[in-house]
Amino acid sequence: MSAGVRLFRGARPVDAVAPDDRGLAYGDGLFETMRVHAGTVPWWDAHWSRLSLGAARLSIALPDAGQVRAEAGSLFDDGAHGVLKLLLTRGGSARGYAPIDGAEPSWMLARHPLPAPAASARAIWCDTRLALQPALAGIKHCNRLEQVLARAECVAAGADEGLMCDGQGTVVSATSANLFVLRDGRWLTPPIDRCGVAGTCRAILLPALDAREQRLQRGDVERADAVFLCNAVRGILPVARLGARTWELHPALAQAHAALGRSHPGFAPGQSASAMEAG
Amino acid sequence: MSAGVRLFRGARPVDAVAPDDRGLAYGDGLFETMRVHAGTVPWWDAHWSRLSLGAARLSIALPDAGQVRAEAGSLFDDGAHGVLKLLLTRGGSARGYAPIDGAEPSWMLARHPLPAPAASARAIWCDTRLALQPALAGIKHCNRLEQVLARAECVAAGADEGLMCDGQGTVVSATSANLFVLRDGRWLTPPIDRCGVAGTCRAILLPALDAREQRLQRGDVERADAVFLCNAVRGILPVARLGARTWELHPALAQAHAALGRSHPGFAPGQSASAMEAG
Repeated sequence: MSAGVRLFRGARPVDAVAPDDRGLAYGDGLFETMRVHAGTVPWWDAHWSRLSLGAARLSIALPDAGQVRAEAGSLFDDGAHGVLKLLLTRGGSARGYAPIDGAEPSWMLARHPLPAPAASARAIWCDTRLALQPALAGIKHCNRLEQVLARAECVAAGADEGLMCDGQGTVVSATSANLFVLRDGRWLTPPIDRCGVAGTCRAILLPALDAREQRLQRGDVERADAVFLCNAVRGILPVARLGARTWELHPALAQAHAALGRSHPGFAPGQSASAMEAG
Repeated sequence: MSAGVRLFRGARPVDAVAPDDRGLAYGDGLFETMRVHAGTVPWWDAHWSRLSLGAARLSIALPDAGQVRAEAGSLFDDGAHGVLKLLLTRGGSARGYAPIDGAEPSWMLARHPLPAPAASARAIWCDTRLALQPALAGIKHCNRLEQVLARAECVAAGADEGLMCDGQGTVVSATSANLFVLRDGRWLTPPIDRCGVAGTCRAILLPALDAREQRLQRGDVERADAVFLCNAVRGILPVARLGARTWELHPALAQAHAALGRSHPGFAPGQSASAMEAG
């Protein structure tokens, strides 16, 4: 097992993933992907809050918050920048879908490098839809085949990301990022009430940009004055191309970058230089 | 690791599940649950065929069919009855949804005992819906949170199984079984084109019972003359109660049991005695 991975069952370190782990069998778990800045996770509370919400929704027991945070800290005790992934599953049980009352959860921490910086993204419209499922909307659960299929479309098309619509054709998000569009001087983002993941970065940008939740059609995106994707690893990533439509960098994007930088030093204009240089 | 579990990566036996296995991260895999009779899997070809269909749909590489079957046989070389679970995942890869071209799949075989026999089932209507997702309908993939949530409803209600409707309120199946209802002397079962799993047992019973695929509403089920659930582990399980509605065993159920027994000796009336005794 890699030195950058730590596994636990309840409070105990373990050597391996149990073959009967329900995460493996059914995607019966949750995850968080966090940007680490100089060994710390500035948005830790927001990530833990969403994880807690998901765990409550799925009735998965949470490990001790202090222990998880301490183990996370020790994975980055060299003070490096990077990405921290936390995976929480319902643990092991007998065969069958029924969750076992009082099951000890399994959890895993993994250290990853920062992705290569990008100034902007070329996006496509994915054919794969996000099914309408309010019971699972918003939380970052591990049932992600829709995203896997959509991402395969992006790879096949040579695109960086793909925008996804729900089963009714309404725009939701990108495969691994939320979506903001600028229309009439106002940032808009789709509500995440019927499908999709309510991103940590999105939650921070909504008030910071005085943005509004609004259902968007494909045409609303294509006719927008600016479009960006956001997630907790990359921060804000402007969309430069969507199919045949192209955008120059809009001045409002620099303001959005600055707002984000005030919340997370890893996304401060000086830090995320590569994303700004294109301007 | 239990003696009843074998793990592989590509063609090689391995000792443990890789922490970065995409099955664990995203439910990015498929499974089959097979009834073993005297050390053999009578419906092997049907299970392998559905697995192949799912693997093609998700672009997951299939392991060598002969190797999988030989390993499965050696897990039951004592000639016992039981249940064999085969789990196939896309294997490991870097962080992120994008599948890696040419990734070696991971697969696992696990031996389980037969479940306790049951004469009939008490069922409820589950509140949890099956989202409409034609891209994933029919195949037995590992994104099963809807079934986990629905099964928790069954446990809370003290029911054996739960019937699930899709996002439009149309009846689809039980949480881990398909559904047949008898109306006007004809067996009907919902089509599995928008969500749900196209069961192996269902596929065998459709022609054997001259059954018809038809969209069903809740009232159609409640007003039926007989209702049964079916899957590859339990065969046919009559529904004795659904909420306030109760059914006596209908003579057509004995005919269905007999038809199934001709296809799989584990389900022959003499073998599945407990399911028949209630008549």
